[in-house]
Amino acid sequence: MRTVVVEEPGRVSVQERLDPELPSADGAVVAVEASAICGSDLHLYDGDLPLFPVAIGHEAVGRVVEVGPDVARFAVGDRVLVAAVAGCGRCDGCATGDPVTCRAGPRVFGAGELGGAQSDLLAVPAADFQLLEVPEGVSDEAALLLTDNLATGWAGARRAELAPGGTVAVLGLGAVGLCAVRAALVQGAGRVLAVDPVEGRRRRAAAAGATILDASTADAVRDAVFEATDGRGADAVIDAVATDATLDAAFAAVRAGGTISVLGVHDMAPYPLPVLTGVYRSITLRMTTAPVQAAWRDLVPLVQDGRLDTTGIFTHDFALDDAAAAYEAAAARSGDCMKVRFHP
Amino acid sequence: MRTVVVEEPGRVSVQERLDPELPSADGAVVAVEASAICGSDLHLYDGDLPLFPVAIGHEAVGRVVEVGPDVARFAVGDRVLVAAVAGCGRCDGCATGDPVTCRAGPRVFGAGELGGAQSDLLAVPAADFQLLEVPEGVSDEAALLLTDNLATGWAGARRAELAPGGTVAVLGLGAVGLCAVRAALVQGAGRVLAVDPVEGRRRRAAAAGATILDASTADAVRDAVFEATDGRGADAVIDAVATDATLDAAFAAVRAGGTISVLGVHDMAPYPLPVLTGVYRSITLRMTTAPVQAAWRDLVPLVQDGRLDTTGIFTHDFALDDAAAAYEAAAARSGDCMKVRFHP
Amino acid sequence: MRTVVVEEPGRVSVQERLDPELPSADGAVVAVEASAICGSDLHLYDGDLPLFPVAIGHEAVGRVVEVGPDVARFAVGDRVLVAAVAGCGRCDGCATGDPVTCRAGPRVFGAGELGGAQSDLLAVPAADFQLLEVPEGVSDEAALLLTDNLATGWAGARRAELAPGGTVAVLGLGAVGLCAVRAALVQGAGRVLAVDPVEGRRRRAAAAGATILDASTADAVRDAVFEATDGRGADAVIDAVATDATLDAAFAAVRAGGTISVLGVHDMAPYPLPVLTGVYRSITLRMTTAPVQAAWRDLVPLVQDGRLDTTGIFTHDFALDDAAAAYEAAAARSGDCMKVRFHP
Amino acid sequence: MRTVVVEEPGRVSVQERLDPELPSADGAVVAVEASAICGSDLHLYDGDLPLFPVAIGHEAVGRVVEVGPDVARFAVGDRVLVAAVAGCGRCDGCATGDPVTCRAGPRVFGAGELGGAQSDLLAVPAADFQLLEVPEGVSDEAALLLTDNLATGWAGARRAELAPGGTVAVLGLGAVGLCAVRAALVQGAGRVLAVDPVEGRRRRAAAAGATILDASTADAVRDAVFEATDGRGADAVIDAVATDATLDAAFAAVRAGGTISVLGVHDMAPYPLPVLTGVYRSITLRMTTAPVQAAWRDLVPLVQDGRLDTTGIFTHDFALDDAAAAYEAAAARSGDCMKVRFHP
Repeated sequence: MRTVVVEEPGRVSVQERLDPELPSADGAVVAVEASAICGSDLHLYDGDLPLFPVAIGHEAVGRVVEVGPDVARFAVGDRVLVAAVAGCGRCDGCATGDPVTCRAGPRVFGAGELGGAQSDLLAVPAADFQLLEVPEGVSDEAALLLTDNLATGWAGARRAELAPGGTVAVLGLGAVGLCAVRAALVQGAGRVLAVDPVEGRRRRAAAAGATILDASTADAVRDAVFEATDGRGADAVIDAVATDATLDAAFAAVRAGGTISVLGVHDMAPYPLPVLTGVYRSITLRMTTAPVQAAWRDLVPLVQDGRLDTTGIFTHDFALDDAAAAYEAAAARSGDCMKVRFHP
Repeated sequence: MRTVVVEEPGRVSVQERLDPELPSADGAVVAVEASAICGSDLHLYDGDLPLFPVAIGHEAVGRVVEVGPDVARFAVGDRVLVAAVAGCGRCDGCATGDPVTCRAGPRVFGAGELGGAQSDLLAVPAADFQLLEVPEGVSDEAALLLTDNLATGWAGARRAELAPGGTVAVLGLGAVGLCAVRAALVQGAGRVLAVDPVEGRRRRAAAAGATILDASTADAVRDAVFEATDGRGADAVIDAVATDATLDAAFAAVRAGGTISVLGVHDMAPYPLPVLTGVYRSITLRMTTAPVQAAWRDLVPLVQDGRLDTTGIFTHDFALDDAAAAYEAAAARSGDCMKVRFHP
Repeated sequence: MRTVVVEEPGRVSVQERLDPELPSADGAVVAVEASAICGSDLHLYDGDLPLFPVAIGHEAVGRVVEVGPDVARFAVGDRVLVAAVAGCGRCDGCATGDPVTCRAGPRVFGAGELGGAQSDLLAVPAADFQLLEVPEGVSDEAALLLTDNLATGWAGARRAELAPGGTVAVLGLGAVGLCAVRAALVQGAGRVLAVDPVEGRRRRAAAAGATILDASTADAVRDAVFEATDGRGADAVIDAVATDATLDAAFAAVRAGGTISVLGVHDMAPYPLPVLTGVYRSITLRMTTAPVQAAWRDLVPLVQDGRLDTTGIFTHDFALDDAAAAYEAAAARSGDCMKVRFHP
Repeated sequence: MRTVVVEEPGRVSVQERLDPELPSADGAVVAVEASAICGSDLHLYDGDLPLFPVAIGHEAVGRVVEVGPDVARFAVGDRVLVAAVAGCGRCDGCATGDPVTCRAGPRVFGAGELGGAQSDLLAVPAADFQLLEVPEGVSDEAALLLTDNLATGWAGARRAELAPGGTVAVLGLGAVGLCAVRAALVQGAGRVLAVDPVEGRRRRAAAAGATILDASTADAVRDAVFEATDGRGADAVIDAVATDATLDAAFAAVRAGGTISVLGVHDMAPYPLPVLTGVYRSITLRMTTAPVQAAWRDLVPLVQDGRLDTTGIFTHDFALDDAAAAYEAAAARSGDCMKVRFHP
């Protein structure tokens, strides 16, 4: 089979590999029908995380082609989406639907331990936990977003602890940030203030109902947020970028007693946290990898009933063989290119 | 009147000052009957925070000797305790009982803006918000703890988001840490693991129901916590010290998906936060200055009904004139000296 | 001044009364600019509650014409709305924003103890607690709805304990029911199933995003809800009518473990509660009088930012002198007449 | 094998039956080592619920003697306790740990559909969901209580929505009521007021930390609760009896805005609910069958760590063959006989 490999920072190739075998008695193999490039893939591509060479990708929709004897809920031929984060599926941590709390430790596809989703075939352990039959009324785009980005944006908004009518600032309006904007509104936010330097992204967030702030530095974000909130600061800030600069802006823009919800992948250096100020202002900092499987419980009916918009995020389609060009397009992070999909 | 002043790091004196006037029409003046040294006072005394010279102290119990015309709930002669953190008392932030969220900004006694509680007299703004009549059945010791330390330990335990039966590790067993141990147990903690190098403090925490871990480095704390939790880590960690070392230990000891509740006063340098790990493990970091007035709603009945123990914390009494000796004793942070009280 | 009086069931007149005096040092007098007829007024008009003769009405917007010396937040000339439920404004119960929990007991305007809002003038006790300056960006219609109906529908939806994406059935689509439909959607409901026999009301609920069920008996409601929920029942049912018939339907339609939120005014007879079934199915029954003042915190920003629609509810305007005709129109409960407003 | 059968109201016999077979591929058979009589068994024995003849009992501890091929977590020889309420173990309802919300509908042992636990052998469907290995450090008494009564008292206290420091009244101090008293204190109740006419039960509740009220009628309970709460009423009332009389007392004793948590088994007649008063006072009525499996997550560590006392509840041991005498003793509901255990 073919799989996309990041060989070194900035260099991607499509390689032939042996077809994967069943990973375990409770596992399955999925023939990938669509996969996508996530912002965190770009961190590997950019070299922020030293994990190469690596078969990449953790967002996949496809069809089950093989199941282990202990799989109860799926059969060959089922059309499924695959949660980006994997757990053992049997412990009390997984029972909460959050593989991050798996007793055996979570694993992410396309990061070395498990195969990459940007492939023809993907071996999936603990299939009963890891897979979701593509629900009726859920589009292909929505299904692909449910594997990660939509669950991430949703969980980030939930964990921002926003009371109904509250004001949240979203920093970064890529796929996750835009999902967070939409999620916050569905969850009862009064106002969503949105920040991103890229015009195409701003336009999409505005169309979703956000108020765009024209600000780039931490100081400018703070000033704009404080002006928009009558001098108080945002009840919550969702940082969907997670660089030192956006974290600084989040601390500057959040009100006393408020919450910062961090969704992005920082590089490996520590962030200089202003802990004394944080204590004096009673700030909460929630860092989150999406509890994908738990989020499905909330999200599937919302998507099915059309309450949560999932359109307008995928802007580019590539064949798997054109992976190098696809990564180049995605890494440009232009407003035209929100998110890239592969159709193997 | 007399007031205790930190003149420079390590040097304390008792000075004569003019008696304070009513600070505002909604204010009061309280004749202090007892005050206490808080751990954060020692940060000023130690020079971690450059605020000298400063009239110090923010924990006071006393009697109202003067009230402004707009004070509705208090009269001359009332025996009261004074919340350490002050708000305007009229905004929606103060309405939640958390002066940290005051629209006009919170102020702390004994830090420059307001007088110090280690004095004969204390001017109190927004008295209806700031004062609590010492409730029936509340001892003098308990009343003094309700001004700050007990509210801090209580709020820190609440914000640790512990489910009933969960395991919490408390780092630092001074007055706040011991209050947090007791609070966590009242709030339904299954197990409290407690860490402190000082034997007298460990003994008190053990008597309160904690399991003492013999560990000092971050690695040793992690190992001991993981051994005690079947390899999982603590559901929550309350850091009642807040140095880089205890924060490192907190991150090392908390389970994936868990919460770190920070109560202590860090110095002015930033803490190098492992944000990438925090995101991968979905860690929450809550930093907290006590919402004193809100905490009273929970705490007063618990103290009155004897459900929350407030004994065994004050170990030393000093006359106000002996403030220098008092600070010397407190700064030694020995197990014999948990907390110092002044009787002017 | 003039005031509307229900003299006996079905008979309303406009009477001359002495102008009200300041009710207390912390009170105010408001010149009513607009008032409205609430569904609970119709219960008095219909004779369900034996309270006549009574000066009626508890929804008012107007201008302050007199204030007591202890009123801090309002001055003559302020444009205000008046919370339908009154508390002392000073106790810990009122501090939560819910006058139902007032230590002195709540009082409702237009029910005997306090004056009626369908008047030229209204005496308001505890004005700082009872009044809200009409916020910028809040229409006259919205202001009138904030005195009661919108707060009731909002609180009823909140207390329905719906998880995001959940399904709620709303029984009764008058003003409160329609507010509940809109509130549930803002709060993240996945699907709102709506029941009412009156076509005009169904049309409005459908326009707000609800799915209309064609059902009238309890059995038919249950069948329709179970069919719409894959045989499970609704996660929550909001009963905005509260007759025995709608309560029966609510019990029949709610899923095991679900919540029934009751907002309507039942007559004085008890409801035969199927308590054994309730225990076996772990049903929660929340009965609610709106915590109006608390609800404002959520609602004002949502209304200001246009997130919560308040249009399309007032359908009829009457002069105060035409109160008899106004009540006749309202009591017909036709789809054409959702809610009546007086412009004195 | 032997099984205890209620043949008609007041008449119990021990009958020989064929040994049960495996109920399903995911089921098990358990050799009962200890079982117990629950208060709800007495409702069948008393004839309140017309379910005879019926093999009775739903509280069992024993050893696995046979397992189906789809059982993953248990093997022959494991010492287990059996949750009183059974679910399919595979649906999203069961995933919450609450079999009441099972999509296939919950079933209770000893009520006709499934075998009775007061037997030599018990067939258990969905064993992975239904069984819990008796945890280390959990006594035989505690294990038996974890099958139902302790989970019921715990859930009843949780669903009473008590804020820390709040006051809860517990009506009825049998096994469930006493568990509720202890649970409420572990969960942070400030004060537990306890009502029961039987002296031996009152003594045990007092020893657990409750304040005993000397009251029997609804009026007397209200008066005593209001006197104990400064005229306010209890924040919550747990009704562990659930007759019309105790429900009346609960409504009379709860404060405005408070919660009544109903745990007992009412007879089949409806309860005349004062719904108008309930709405005016914003009362919540939660009726609950224990979510046993979910409660284990909280309870096991609390029992293991000795935080939740489980002693002093079992007062009488009988051989299975003496079931008639055992039921006679239990039905007397004297203070001497709190709860009966069988040792087959």
